[in-house]
Amino acid sequence: MLVRNIETGRNLLVRLDHGADIVSQISEAAASERIHTGVFSIIGALTDAQIAFYDQESHEYHELMVDEPVELVSCTGNISTKDGKPFVHAHAVLAGLEGECRGGHLIKGGIFAAELYMQELLSPPLIRMHDSVTGLYLWGDG
Amino acid sequence: MLVRNIETGRNLLVRLDHGADIVSQISEAAASERIHTGVFSIIGALTDAQIAFYDQESHEYHELMVDEPVELVSCTGNISTKDGKPFVHAHAVLAGLEGECRGGHLIKGGIFAAELYMQELLSPPLIRMHDSVTGLYLWGDG
Amino acid sequence: MLVRNIETGRNLLVRLDHGADIVSQISEAAASERIHTGVFSIIGALTDAQIAFYDQESHEYHELMVDEPVELVSCTGNISTKDGKPFVHAHAVLAGLEGECRGGHLIKGGIFAAELYMQELLSPPLIRMHDSVTGLYLWGDG
Repeated sequence: MLVRNIETGRNLLVRLDHGADIVSQISEAAASERIHTGVFSIIGALTDAQIAFYDQESHEYHELMVDEPVELVSCTGNISTKDGKPFVHAHAVLAGLEGECRGGHLIKGGIFAAELYMQELLSPPLIRMHDSVTGLYLWGDG
Repeated sequence: MLVRNIETGRNLLVRLDHGADIVSQISEAAASERIHTGVFSIIGALTDAQIAFYDQESHEYHELMVDEPVELVSCTGNISTKDGKPFVHAHAVLAGLEGECRGGHLIKGGIFAAELYMQELLSPPLIRMHDSVTGLYLWGDG
Repeated sequence: MLVRNIETGRNLLVRLDHGADIVSQISEAAASERIHTGVFSIIGALTDAQIAFYDQESHEYHELMVDEPVELVSCTGNISTKDGKPFVHAHAVLAGLEGECRGGHLIKGGIFAAELYMQELLSPPLIRMHDSVTGLYLWGDG
């Protein structure tokens, strides 16, 4: 277990832009305040989205297109550092007209409306490094 | 993108009342500490609920009744100001007996048991104003 | 409504251990920093899991085994005190290959990869006591 004990920094409430991509907007919100480490939560609605399931054997992402409007009923994640730049890791649950849910790793999504809360954490950069066991870029000791 | 950079205020952990409506209880918890801006997360169980999907074309809510007990497996949202009063915006994911999930904009729900965490944000009032593009009341520059 | 107004303490970002049980790891993360009250959020992936639905009439948990890899798309909860020890209460939403979601009270789960954010709350111990109405151990006034 790699534990970082961190002071809190700024807090942001952000109205994200209609028509923009949600993952890009999370990055931009962080960049606007030069936040390199943090956690966030979003609620809103998307015009469409792309989510993914990580195959734990093949180590490849299985992507799923959501080609219709959905409620963004849960979206939580974090900002850390990968290749020297702030990197967004977000998971989401999307709900359709009858409440039916699809969830996964959030790759992109067209914003209809979305409200972001972000909590900055005043950590030394928390760096993602390749992990051979999972094939993922996980927080390292570096 | 409308970004508010905000100091944190009080933190609440609240055991909500059995038999009460969950959205009203979120409002009451905020009112009990005179919180007008904040974010929250709840887990618990509901006896029944009403959720909604916002039709992005007609600009009307499509409502869905959930007439049976469910686990409240995710509920996140925020408090801001609408018409001069604290306004709760919450999204929820509800799970049934076999884990099946329904999600949406949370309109109401009968509390069986629920635990709320709320983080106050010491913002000037963050005001919801009508947005003609989406038909929603979104955070404005006012 | 039982309201606790609490100062914040430490913040943890934790890379949980591949192959370990997620609920045990949440406990260990708290114990590593002697946190007895707090809230948390996790995203990641599990190799398998066990979740539950609480039957509001019989007051028994109906358990559901998830015997395949899933994305942990939402996991929120809190740490409080039960029988003199830190106690984890977590709810989760799990997503499969096609994004299909199952959710419930999280009993256990094998970690493939998981990232935990925990916020300590500097409360006097918040004690879970048996509640005869619900059959659950809820926060009491004790």
